[in-house]
Amino acid sequence: MYFHDKRLQYPVRVETPDPLFARQLQQAIGGVEGEIRVCLQYFFQAWGARGPDTRYRDMLLHTATEEIGHIEMLATAVALNLENAPLTLQETAAEAHPVVNAVLGGERPRHVVEGMLQRHLLSTGLAAMPTNADGVPFDCSHVYASGNLAADMYANVTAEATGRTLAVRLYNAAKDPGMRDMLSFLIARDTMHQQQWLAAIEEMGGAAALPIPNSFDQAQERQEFSYVYLGTGTEGVPPPEGRFTAGPSMDGRGQFSALQATPMGEAPVLGPARPGSGAQQEQIVPR
Amino acid sequence: MYFHDKRLQYPVRVETPDPLFARQLQQAIGGVEGEIRVCLQYFFQAWGARGPDTRYRDMLLHTATEEIGHIEMLATAVALNLENAPLTLQETAAEAHPVVNAVLGGERPRHVVEGMLQRHLLSTGLAAMPTNADGVPFDCSHVYASGNLAADMYANVTAEATGRTLAVRLYNAAKDPGMRDMLSFLIARDTMHQQQWLAAIEEMGGAAALPIPNSFDQAQERQEFSYVYLGTGTEGVPPPEGRFTAGPSMDGRGQFSALQATPMGEAPVLGPARPGSGAQQEQIVPR
Amino acid sequence: MYFHDKRLQYPVRVETPDPLFARQLQQAIGGVEGEIRVCLQYFFQAWGARGPDTRYRDMLLHTATEEIGHIEMLATAVALNLENAPLTLQETAAEAHPVVNAVLGGERPRHVVEGMLQRHLLSTGLAAMPTNADGVPFDCSHVYASGNLAADMYANVTAEATGRTLAVRLYNAAKDPGMRDMLSFLIARDTMHQQQWLAAIEEMGGAAALPIPNSFDQAQERQEFSYVYLGTGTEGVPPPEGRFTAGPSMDGRGQFSALQATPMGEAPVLGPARPGSGAQQEQIVPR
Amino acid sequence: MYFHDKRLQYPVRVETPDPLFARQLQQAIGGVEGEIRVCLQYFFQAWGARGPDTRYRDMLLHTATEEIGHIEMLATAVALNLENAPLTLQETAAEAHPVVNAVLGGERPRHVVEGMLQRHLLSTGLAAMPTNADGVPFDCSHVYASGNLAADMYANVTAEATGRTLAVRLYNAAKDPGMRDMLSFLIARDTMHQQQWLAAIEEMGGAAALPIPNSFDQAQERQEFSYVYLGTGTEGVPPPEGRFTAGPSMDGRGQFSALQATPMGEAPVLGPARPGSGAQQEQIVPR
Amino acid sequence: MYFHDKRLQYPVRVETPDPLFARQLQQAIGGVEGEIRVCLQYFFQAWGARGPDTRYRDMLLHTATEEIGHIEMLATAVALNLENAPLTLQETAAEAHPVVNAVLGGERPRHVVEGMLQRHLLSTGLAAMPTNADGVPFDCSHVYASGNLAADMYANVTAEATGRTLAVRLYNAAKDPGMRDMLSFLIARDTMHQQQWLAAIEEMGGAAALPIPNSFDQAQERQEFSYVYLGTGTEGVPPPEGRFTAGPSMDGRGQFSALQATPMGEAPVLGPARPGSGAQQEQIVPR
Amino acid sequence: MYFHDKRLQYPVRVETPDPLFARQLQQAIGGVEGEIRVCLQYFFQAWGARGPDTRYRDMLLHTATEEIGHIEMLATAVALNLENAPLTLQETAAEAHPVVNAVLGGERPRHVVEGMLQRHLLSTGLAAMPTNADGVPFDCSHVYASGNLAADMYANVTAEATGRTLAVRLYNAAKDPGMRDMLSFLIARDTMHQQQWLAAIEEMGGAAALPIPNSFDQAQERQEFSYVYLGTGTEGVPPPEGRFTAGPSMDGRGQFSALQATPMGEAPVLGPARPGSGAQQEQIVPR
Repeated sequence: MYFHDKRLQYPVRVETPDPLFARQLQQAIGGVEGEIRVCLQYFFQAWGARGPDTRYRDMLLHTATEEIGHIEMLATAVALNLENAPLTLQETAAEAHPVVNAVLGGERPRHVVEGMLQRHLLSTGLAAMPTNADGVPFDCSHVYASGNLAADMYANVTAEATGRTLAVRLYNAAKDPGMRDMLSFLIARDTMHQQQWLAAIEEMGGAAALPIPNSFDQAQERQEFSYVYLGTGTEGVPPPEGRFTAGPSMDGRGQFSALQATPMGEAPVLGPARPGSGAQQEQIVPR
Repeated sequence: MYFHDKRLQYPVRVETPDPLFARQLQQAIGGVEGEIRVCLQYFFQAWGARGPDTRYRDMLLHTATEEIGHIEMLATAVALNLENAPLTLQETAAEAHPVVNAVLGGERPRHVVEGMLQRHLLSTGLAAMPTNADGVPFDCSHVYASGNLAADMYANVTAEATGRTLAVRLYNAAKDPGMRDMLSFLIARDTMHQQQWLAAIEEMGGAAALPIPNSFDQAQERQEFSYVYLGTGTEGVPPPEGRFTAGPSMDGRGQFSALQATPMGEAPVLGPARPGSGAQQEQIVPR
Repeated sequence: MYFHDKRLQYPVRVETPDPLFARQLQQAIGGVEGEIRVCLQYFFQAWGARGPDTRYRDMLLHTATEEIGHIEMLATAVALNLENAPLTLQETAAEAHPVVNAVLGGERPRHVVEGMLQRHLLSTGLAAMPTNADGVPFDCSHVYASGNLAADMYANVTAEATGRTLAVRLYNAAKDPGMRDMLSFLIARDTMHQQQWLAAIEEMGGAAALPIPNSFDQAQERQEFSYVYLGTGTEGVPPPEGRFTAGPSMDGRGQFSALQATPMGEAPVLGPARPGSGAQQEQIVPR
Repeated sequence: MYFHDKRLQYPVRVETPDPLFARQLQQAIGGVEGEIRVCLQYFFQAWGARGPDTRYRDMLLHTATEEIGHIEMLATAVALNLENAPLTLQETAAEAHPVVNAVLGGERPRHVVEGMLQRHLLSTGLAAMPTNADGVPFDCSHVYASGNLAADMYANVTAEATGRTLAVRLYNAAKDPGMRDMLSFLIARDTMHQQQWLAAIEEMGGAAALPIPNSFDQAQERQEFSYVYLGTGTEGVPPPEGRFTAGPSMDGRGQFSALQATPMGEAPVLGPARPGSGAQQEQIVPR
Repeated sequence: MYFHDKRLQYPVRVETPDPLFARQLQQAIGGVEGEIRVCLQYFFQAWGARGPDTRYRDMLLHTATEEIGHIEMLATAVALNLENAPLTLQETAAEAHPVVNAVLGGERPRHVVEGMLQRHLLSTGLAAMPTNADGVPFDCSHVYASGNLAADMYANVTAEATGRTLAVRLYNAAKDPGMRDMLSFLIARDTMHQQQWLAAIEEMGGAAALPIPNSFDQAQERQEFSYVYLGTGTEGVPPPEGRFTAGPSMDGRGQFSALQATPMGEAPVLGPARPGSGAQQEQIVPR
Repeated sequence: MYFHDKRLQYPVRVETPDPLFARQLQQAIGGVEGEIRVCLQYFFQAWGARGPDTRYRDMLLHTATEEIGHIEMLATAVALNLENAPLTLQETAAEAHPVVNAVLGGERPRHVVEGMLQRHLLSTGLAAMPTNADGVPFDCSHVYASGNLAADMYANVTAEATGRTLAVRLYNAAKDPGMRDMLSFLIARDTMHQQQWLAAIEEMGGAAALPIPNSFDQAQERQEFSYVYLGTGTEGVPPPEGRFTAGPSMDGRGQFSALQATPMGEAPVLGPARPGSGAQQEQIVPR
């Protein structure tokens, strides 16, 4: 079960509120690279973890719980960035941009409102919501928890790699020193989280964990296709050469090679449509 | 641009059609672990690949193109498994299960129809569709293409790891020798695809690719938090120990340690609701 | 504005309630071939119809309003088919299937519950909901209203063609005479609705409405590609011959021909990743 | 920030695992009446709460944190109910149901697999996932946090009312004593949560909180329509009479009455389609 | 069944079309607080209403039918606000903003186009669509119809409370007198609709309707947790005090109290992964 | 199976990159009128095509394969249009718009960033993604493949009609000569694709293909309603007259007429809520 402390994990300060930056921060809350995703992903992996070694369950729970606090920090940052947002178009014109108003006849600019997520104004009363930066709600199909620990750890590395890439982009986009400070902390945590899931893969044996799942007897797969890079080009140009076309495979269980792909099957033949199946008559009985 | 050959990449045969297996195969078509996802993911990564080394773009294009053929094989397998599916409840009762009909008074069993995706009957005329095994349509937010090659390669390893886990589960669930043969081929290809994306990461420098993105100056992150595992337990039990709590970090740039998390920030203070923002009066003016 | 009469447009009777048929009927309510879709589609087309001839706006409004009544009939049919559904697994075992219970030791069958949409039991209290037959909620992106009347009329023909195909499949699946009667009415209305949208296209000039939109000066398109069927096969087999590869085009503005497709462009060249864009270092600076 | 204790808030025991009950429990995890929803809803309301009285923010945080533990309990219950689920169709036939196998020739029943969420088998390795009982992923658009405290409290009462209705249905469907015990606890908590949000509304003034938002000057609304029930029937039958058609309004600011609705506006007139807007020619220039 | 009158329920006039306001109005059409939602919600509640008192069914039908007319008014308002929207970027530059063009060299501003929903231009030909103000299509999972009348009435109060909050925000954002007039009518109707659903709850007994559902025997719930507010803080600070922590409960069936939450269960123990379940070998057999 | 050539089907050049045009082009990639949709639609129709005449399967495969190349062209166009997009707000201010900066004090304009899809900056590193122009991901429920060839051909005409309408709107919006050239090619292909599906319908018999499905015996439908236009107006104004209210029907199987709709059914009567169904007590037992 869970507990909270009213204080934030790390300080969140905003000196100059910026409603467009509030919008951009939404990606780190409700985007597929964001914190709701990793939080729920680590929780569902933990709650479903099977196997004799419960350490991974514990490890996941600690970090999942930390991630709730990251959503909280970002939601706070969004609300603070929206503090002075114009509520109406008039407000924009009348208060916020006197110089431009002069140029534009008191009618414009409205781009501050135009660049906002409209739901920040219309649906939340100037607060964060569980959507991405373009307003699309987070959808929990992105919570990857496969029941295979190694697959899940790679999913977690991916989530933290795209998450840190996003955080870096936000850092580069940020002007506000408070926001830069907050992001420098979140970037550091993403560094660690990438590292810890990779460490777990190493603990699971590294190459010995491959191919995933490693509990399937490879004698049952068509092994002549297990380590061959298939080219699908028509130009007569061979596929690119690289670590993946020659030498020992990464799992040490085969040798990489490369081959041009060709059809091994025939054109498929499906049965005709059956009476009563709602097809056209011509699909049922030959004309 | 693209070309096709009417023949399949690998033979697809079904001796004993089974509409429930048709349903299960849908997960490999339109599930998040499925082939539409990897196909579009590799295409979008290729089409957006930036950088001086165009080999990764090429490598992605070859494999993306191969994946179209995998969707085709699976869609064919679904259609073949639906060949003899009952179109109606009566048909089930009247033809398919005489023994049970005797026991059950000619009314039942209908579970063959009940276990089907209803849309296989009602929407497709007994053919595959781009949904998962529970009928949820594939949604392209699962196409990960971050603009960071290393993050994308980890996303690809993940996709093939969950994809091979799914294919193994389908193989274990399959009775039909034709289906087992087809899956033994797809499992082999997933083996290779896991390997080739890992090989690409090695080519990018392995640990040198980390933390992702490696183009961000780590001096700008709060480095005291970059390699520390934070425990969030309240029971007085320390976090689990492992490769991730001591010793050199995976990227060789730090030393792992572990620490109990504590709040470093304060309870957040948001401004009151503003007049005209649609809040309750009490949120605007103190009572 | 709108009015209602408590009575249904056409009688809805169910003699033998069947919870699986309730599930199948959901496709006609909240499926993409269903009545919510056509209802909202005709309304949004009507409400946005521009042009001097307001007859199409009126025509759409009449039929959109009729469709509300069709949703109502189907929702009533779902509720009636759920009247005697088992609320619990015990109820199934204890009451509904004594013969099977004897055979199976009082534990089974539960397939009546298993074949139901679980939300019919858990979320609605045995009533219809705006989802399809596999439980996926209707999503209004399927409301096609393009602002081009001819495109919209084809969208409407399509909706009624797939709608009538669905209704025919449901009719074939139905045992209950009341349900067959209701569906025989809905099928007839779908017949008419297909006809009326086709009649509208004829009124708009038939071939003169093509290509859609007909307000674009065809001199601005690359006309050498406007009436040529492009083959993309690699087998050396030419594309299939038919009405679409020779003779005058359907719009009378060209001659059909067929050609093997070949690349006319070059391999694309994108600029390298920019500093600060979150890419890997190798994408920014050549190694 | 947040902390966890490895122990559950309340015991979760399953004596007789049942994969269909696992499916039904999913509704309480990822359904719109479920625990992910209330958890995130209370969090986002708390994190965005504005106003001088921070008690509501605190109150929401306490309960939001409790709800994480409820998701955890339910996810554990799903995993335990899936412990003995058949992994394959053969396994069903060969092991699980010998009596039926005898009757049915060793081929059947497969309805245990057929009644499962296929993704429990194929995507999770027998664990919970953030979807509803029909496999639809939870989507965060259901997190209601409007920025108006009174509206949010009604949203919370609604969530707990539908949540307790669901929990009662699950209790009625449950056979397992451990599951009944767990649900008797969750039902009690839903009782309290309904009560506490209603108590908050009373604290906000009850009728004085109405109409929501109470910060809008009612003089600006067309008050002759503010307390009148409008009938839309065509049968000549007046609207139903009740508390809502006569007597003082609930907020004490008006008198209820009832009236037949009639059009007060005209048929709308939109401008013709503009050149270059992609309409048909006929929409742009009269024929 | 249903009928229409071509005239609008209330006049819709736009003096100065504004494409950004068109965008904002979309929230009231296809947002979760919008009119499609209440329309379909009241219809599905009516069509599934069970119980001896058919008045609630009737009451719901009258108001559901009224709501179609509100969608119509808003769709008309969107189309009118888009009348003069720029179709292209050039048009913006060339016609609409000569002063800025002078300053900016004829290149800009384009923010009028930039602030629009692009689909208003590209997909609708300048008309309304069933999406929210950020372009997300309405999804019918938001149609709450639980089969429990009291739960549904609270859902309806919530919908009208968030709906009126939205309408007030739009009123505050509106400059156009026609739009303000239309919104003053819609706000009044939302006032009434809040009132009428609350009146229905009072008719159902007010506190006697609680806890919802009131048909469940409370002796079956763990009543020691039915009226206690559980604190989940770790700071040693007790939960906030209020109407919800002391005194008689709202339903008169208990006494409120407050307590710090503690774990009553144990850490969950799941069985190991089973052979053939696609897990890693280490999850199946201890190393 | 499938092959690729690295070269594009048609040249894609961008002289003046424009991030807003990149956004608009997204509609042609991941919008419901876009190329992912037609590509997958033709593939799924081909892979599920049943009937003796395999020409339609072949015809669909050729064009489906062509459409992959169209997605590729558009994705390339998006990436090229994003080449010089500002990565940060500062960059905008500092580099891109010196004149405005002077006027606005170095703070603005940011509308170039504001008008972008934020995910182009934050999630893709300046590349295309499978979403529409407002950032909503493509969802494969839009892949229409009904199992009825005639219905599918109308669906294809519709897709190409809305697709060409979109392409025309993009052409009108485009300033860049390279973009206009690319679009003039895509418009031409849409012309042909409209034509070829209409030609297929003619081959299937034109009117003889109607009503769809033509395999249903019309004697089973309530034929008195099969060719009558039903009016639903209350104003006493008859429905509009047209080709659809008089004369022979389009399929030559009936005569059009028009009639005012009236209720033929009764008000529906549902059974009361059952004990244990989670309803309110009042719905179960009369008060």
